[in-house]
Amino acid sequence: MNSNASYKPEEQNHVSKIRSLSFHPRLLVEQVEEGQDLAPKFDADGVIPVVTTDFASGELLMHAYMNEEALRRTIETGEAHYWSRSRQCLWHKGATSGLVQKIKEIRIDDDQDCVWLRVEVAGSGASCHVGYRSCFYRSVPFGASQGEPLVFCEEHKVFDPKVVYGDAPNPTKL
Amino acid sequence: MNSNASYKPEEQNHVSKIRSLSFHPRLLVEQVEEGQDLAPKFDADGVIPVVTTDFASGELLMHAYMNEEALRRTIETGEAHYWSRSRQCLWHKGATSGLVQKIKEIRIDDDQDCVWLRVEVAGSGASCHVGYRSCFYRSVPFGASQGEPLVFCEEHKVFDPKVVYGDAPNPTKL
Repeated sequence: MNSNASYKPEEQNHVSKIRSLSFHPRLLVEQVEEGQDLAPKFDADGVIPVVTTDFASGELLMHAYMNEEALRRTIETGEAHYWSRSRQCLWHKGATSGLVQKIKEIRIDDDQDCVWLRVEVAGSGASCHVGYRSCFYRSVPFGASQGEPLVFCEEHKVFDPKVVYGDAPNPTKL
Repeated sequence: MNSNASYKPEEQNHVSKIRSLSFHPRLLVEQVEEGQDLAPKFDADGVIPVVTTDFASGELLMHAYMNEEALRRTIETGEAHYWSRSRQCLWHKGATSGLVQKIKEIRIDDDQDCVWLRVEVAGSGASCHVGYRSCFYRSVPFGASQGEPLVFCEEHKVFDPKVVYGDAPNPTKL
């Protein structure tokens, strides 16, 4: 038979790899919460929030989003990929800056609507486009100090964004 | 004048406290990223994502959302308040379960569209409605292991959700 004659093991392997990466449908609360099926929930915009922390220090580096393709590529390559909402494109973190995030662990939460990446950052170790190590470089006074100005927690920037990003538009939206 | 005659210092203090808690308008990228004004960005649904980690261990406990009131109450009281999207109500975490999250630090990110809470959890220390310590109790195989079933990272539940929550509806949506 023709179909057997054209059989190629490599091709079959490739197909089964793609198959193994398809996400499970969300059928039951118990399946999603207590099971071992990866059944992520992408929101109305097709994205899922992602929390990225430094593997060694535990520090929160950034909060971003993935679409289905970004999550697949992250799982496949072991390097963080996001969906840039401001630029509306797939975003291989570090492609411009060299500050690639190497995945050490991926976790998913109870209802599978959030991803946690534990990463090691290449180069200077920074993850923030403003130039700081973490995007969360300011603390908010609370309790008795409520209403006081934000407090800077990092003493200086790790890199100069103008040198790294040049004239690329700032992703921050007002 | 009547207005002077009715002056009460306590009242004025109360008013200035409320004033000090109002958020700043978002006028300039530089103000939002490099300044000391708290100018959080609430999305089209009026909420901002929140990442909550354990102060001592750094472990990611949960990912949730706040509306303006939840953020104000968190700053005022030093205890985590969220906006429950599934129940559509203000949610003082721990009000039902006793597992109150005591704020040790609040941080905000570069473009001020995400809040990081570093907390100490009362009681059993759990933060997940399924009964685990963290909501992120399963890891996702990646790279050479991609496509394999999720792996449980916590050995057992910290509490029995049936005992704590009774017949309250499960917040997970498919």
